[in-house]
Amino acid sequence: MTHSIQAIAAAIGGEAVGDTALTIVRATEPADAGPDDLAMAMTPRFQAAIGKGQARAALLAAGTDWQGLGLAAAILAPRARLAMAGLTALLDPGQGFAAGIHPSAVVDPTAVIGANVSIGPLSVIGPRARIGAGSVIGPHCVIGAEVTLGDNAFLREMVSIGARARIGARFVAQPGVRIGGDGFSFVTPEVSGVEMARATLGDQGDAKPQAWLRIHSLGSVTIGDDVEIGANSTVDSGTIRDTVIGSGTKLDSQVQVGHNVRIGTDCLLCAQAGVAGSSEIGNNVVLGGQTGVGDNLTVGDRVIAAGATKILSNVPEGRVMMGYPAVKMDAFTEAYKVIRRLPRLARDVAALKNAVFKGNGSE
Amino acid sequence: MTHSIQAIAAAIGGEAVGDTALTIVRATEPADAGPDDLAMAMTPRFQAAIGKGQARAALLAAGTDWQGLGLAAAILAPRARLAMAGLTALLDPGQGFAAGIHPSAVVDPTAVIGANVSIGPLSVIGPRARIGAGSVIGPHCVIGAEVTLGDNAFLREMVSIGARARIGARFVAQPGVRIGGDGFSFVTPEVSGVEMARATLGDQGDAKPQAWLRIHSLGSVTIGDDVEIGANSTVDSGTIRDTVIGSGTKLDSQVQVGHNVRIGTDCLLCAQAGVAGSSEIGNNVVLGGQTGVGDNLTVGDRVIAAGATKILSNVPEGRVMMGYPAVKMDAFTEAYKVIRRLPRLARDVAALKNAVFKGNGSE
Amino acid sequence: MTHSIQAIAAAIGGEAVGDTALTIVRATEPADAGPDDLAMAMTPRFQAAIGKGQARAALLAAGTDWQGLGLAAAILAPRARLAMAGLTALLDPGQGFAAGIHPSAVVDPTAVIGANVSIGPLSVIGPRARIGAGSVIGPHCVIGAEVTLGDNAFLREMVSIGARARIGARFVAQPGVRIGGDGFSFVTPEVSGVEMARATLGDQGDAKPQAWLRIHSLGSVTIGDDVEIGANSTVDSGTIRDTVIGSGTKLDSQVQVGHNVRIGTDCLLCAQAGVAGSSEIGNNVVLGGQTGVGDNLTVGDRVIAAGATKILSNVPEGRVMMGYPAVKMDAFTEAYKVIRRLPRLARDVAALKNAVFKGNGSE
Repeated sequence: MTHSIQAIAAAIGGEAVGDTALTIVRATEPADAGPDDLAMAMTPRFQAAIGKGQARAALLAAGTDWQGLGLAAAILAPRARLAMAGLTALLDPGQGFAAGIHPSAVVDPTAVIGANVSIGPLSVIGPRARIGAGSVIGPHCVIGAEVTLGDNAFLREMVSIGARARIGARFVAQPGVRIGGDGFSFVTPEVSGVEMARATLGDQGDAKPQAWLRIHSLGSVTIGDDVEIGANSTVDSGTIRDTVIGSGTKLDSQVQVGHNVRIGTDCLLCAQAGVAGSSEIGNNVVLGGQTGVGDNLTVGDRVIAAGATKILSNVPEGRVMMGYPAVKMDAFTEAYKVIRRLPRLARDVAALKNAVFKGNGSE
Repeated sequence: MTHSIQAIAAAIGGEAVGDTALTIVRATEPADAGPDDLAMAMTPRFQAAIGKGQARAALLAAGTDWQGLGLAAAILAPRARLAMAGLTALLDPGQGFAAGIHPSAVVDPTAVIGANVSIGPLSVIGPRARIGAGSVIGPHCVIGAEVTLGDNAFLREMVSIGARARIGARFVAQPGVRIGGDGFSFVTPEVSGVEMARATLGDQGDAKPQAWLRIHSLGSVTIGDDVEIGANSTVDSGTIRDTVIGSGTKLDSQVQVGHNVRIGTDCLLCAQAGVAGSSEIGNNVVLGGQTGVGDNLTVGDRVIAAGATKILSNVPEGRVMMGYPAVKMDAFTEAYKVIRRLPRLARDVAALKNAVFKGNGSE
Repeated sequence: MTHSIQAIAAAIGGEAVGDTALTIVRATEPADAGPDDLAMAMTPRFQAAIGKGQARAALLAAGTDWQGLGLAAAILAPRARLAMAGLTALLDPGQGFAAGIHPSAVVDPTAVIGANVSIGPLSVIGPRARIGAGSVIGPHCVIGAEVTLGDNAFLREMVSIGARARIGARFVAQPGVRIGGDGFSFVTPEVSGVEMARATLGDQGDAKPQAWLRIHSLGSVTIGDDVEIGANSTVDSGTIRDTVIGSGTKLDSQVQVGHNVRIGTDCLLCAQAGVAGSSEIGNNVVLGGQTGVGDNLTVGDRVIAAGATKILSNVPEGRVMMGYPAVKMDAFTEAYKVIRRLPRLARDVAALKNAVFKGNGSE
């Protein structure tokens, strides 16, 4: 399938210039481009590589001298990354999943399957599950009993959703997503060493070793509209009520969301981030890769955590955080500069002690 | 299914008061409660919310003035979290897995299936595997060759267990658990840069770049009784002997247990914790979320590691640890207080240097 | 199956001594050894345990007095871990996967299956996929449309590979590997708080909360020869071009490789390490467990990162790194020694201030 420069520009809100009837087959990096490819060259580094390939057309930042780059046509975009959203949606070759319900799928007769739903080979749809119209369920998925999945979902292979989860429209799940495993909740018959150590910040007292009793998850998981969850990520069920992920929120690969957690709308949780049980994350929060949020905490709206931040106490709205334990990024940066100079600082203090206290017995 | 207040109290070891014949359908948070729900209100915060819902009965901490809360009945529990264990076991609605062996399951004719075992759609049971009586194996599970699984196991969907693993009674595996992947063990023909850097704490010397040769895992995994493993967690096979997880130990989601590791009894490993190859974890150890334990280390009985602790050397029994590298929690807390004041400390030292050495050329 | 001491020694490049016709059934740790087992005793600790078992033969470090240990035969190896590679390859009992294509597998008629390929129960091979000769695909795998998988691959159960991935020879994938989930790439219509905070190192300015638009992954994943990927690890697809993993590189369990990442040859990425989008990792790099590499960074050849290192800026070749943020290991070690003494240092500075400034109003 080919697309004209004019049609692409219209689809992504850019300006078509030059031979706008020129057609392209796919998008490539500039150095890899053949004559029918659109070179992605929104930054100076990629612009400089146009000459290494054969592109006749490119996607460029608004204001770029496209003719000076030797191109026959171009699309000029006012915000380059934004143009990528429209362009890649247009050119996405997809996974090649066949339409319809594969004969090897095991669909419970009480399940309610909407119009134009595709279900891949060997997928299992449980009793009384409801699959929204237009949804695509890849191969090897398991949809549990009484799950509600909204319209136009797209589930890659090997996604599983536990019983009674309720998921909104346009849900996207990458391979291996696990929704609705039981929460991790155990209790000892008497007060445990962990309870003591948390209360005292470090002292187990005389708590005795005990076995753990299981607290079952009676809740499930509720997910809003337009949520995407990355490969092998896990969202655990709530204890009494559902764990909640708000509309528009996106989770990367290998993210863990514990039981009872509530995540607001339009958040990003980057790869390998984890939120422990019963914590509440506001709206428009961004957690960098490998970020951790302790249990029973509150993270306010618009908080941003840099990669590997470990949040161990409540964070007010709007803060930009970093470090273990997390502090405001500027405080982290300032403290860190001193840490790098610590060996010198220690030597300075030793010299001062020698100069000030020498001979008078102090210290 | 309904339960009387009297019956619930008896099952969980609490005291029933008021109209103990009142029946309830499910447990809810107080604000969500309808007239047939039992409000979970063991803390002051949840007690205060009883008025927002319609609950006529509640689970309360012993000694609470239940009549003052306007309730018709109550269950008074001496230890609230403990009462949750019994209550949630009683009310767990389950996953709705059908009884019996689904016709789409692929069960090797040499496998030995105990009495009253359920095997879900499209699950695979390998040659000479033994499944204990009363076990429930969900849909899309793979049980490898010669695996022994004890009585009354409960495996959620998409659990896999590699060849020759031996697992005790009452095993619980959440979705996506992987038991018995090969250990990560590679060797270079000559001494590698990593070996040099470990020996010198930072210097690779003249070690030359080399390709890695694979050390196969001849061992498997041995798991005791009453073990639970969380969603998408991985337990790798041992090299010569089995990797071992002791009875009563619980792993949260996305936990990694490396080859040859031995974990004792009644431990908790919280989400995204990892234990590297050949380390030994004692009994009643608790590792917080995202904790890491380096390879070939010993962590003593009853050690507690706070979230995100990175354990890089042996830890004596009973210690409460925190930090990267891990130190005793009180030492971490004390050092951390100074780190926050470091920029001021650096300014103080500069002022002292100026006052003490000014004009005499030192430093 | 039994092996003579002579045959084993020849296979692993060791020296057979004593009764070299003695046959052994399996390798064990010395204390567990029966009379037909080969005791693995390459270190003093394991040598000391030979007497606790019944081994008549052992694998020992070159130069060991095997007769003094009471053995009838021995294999002397110049480099013990290297001998383990050959020995374990010889004795690996495997997973017991049956040969041939299981009748329950769903193989697209347009897929091209090489000679002597095994496909396990309930695996799915997509349209136009090509499976190299001699490959073994375990049960419950999903190979996507137009995937190319080289010769002699070994895929454990529940591995999935997304459309158009290209993978070289001798690929090994442990259970639950996910190749080719979509990259995590989202953009806001206008400049976001994250973009502002990155530019200013901590200040979101007046960026307004916005919803996220999806950037689709047009690329896939390209993997070289002799690559192994651990249980439940994830490798995301590239945006415009493929994400790349070079030949000879090995990934442990639960490793995450983001979109557009390029990893060189012969690297080791240990468990739970993560590399964020568009970063470039050189050749012969070793990333310890739980290491994180930020996005758009360059990590040079032969870099070694200790466990839990968080790399937040480019790293020149050959460096040994540690810490959060990562610094050279020796700098980390030196700074860390001072951190442990910080409370004392703070007290020293207070004493100095008292002595130097007392009475003159400074500070």
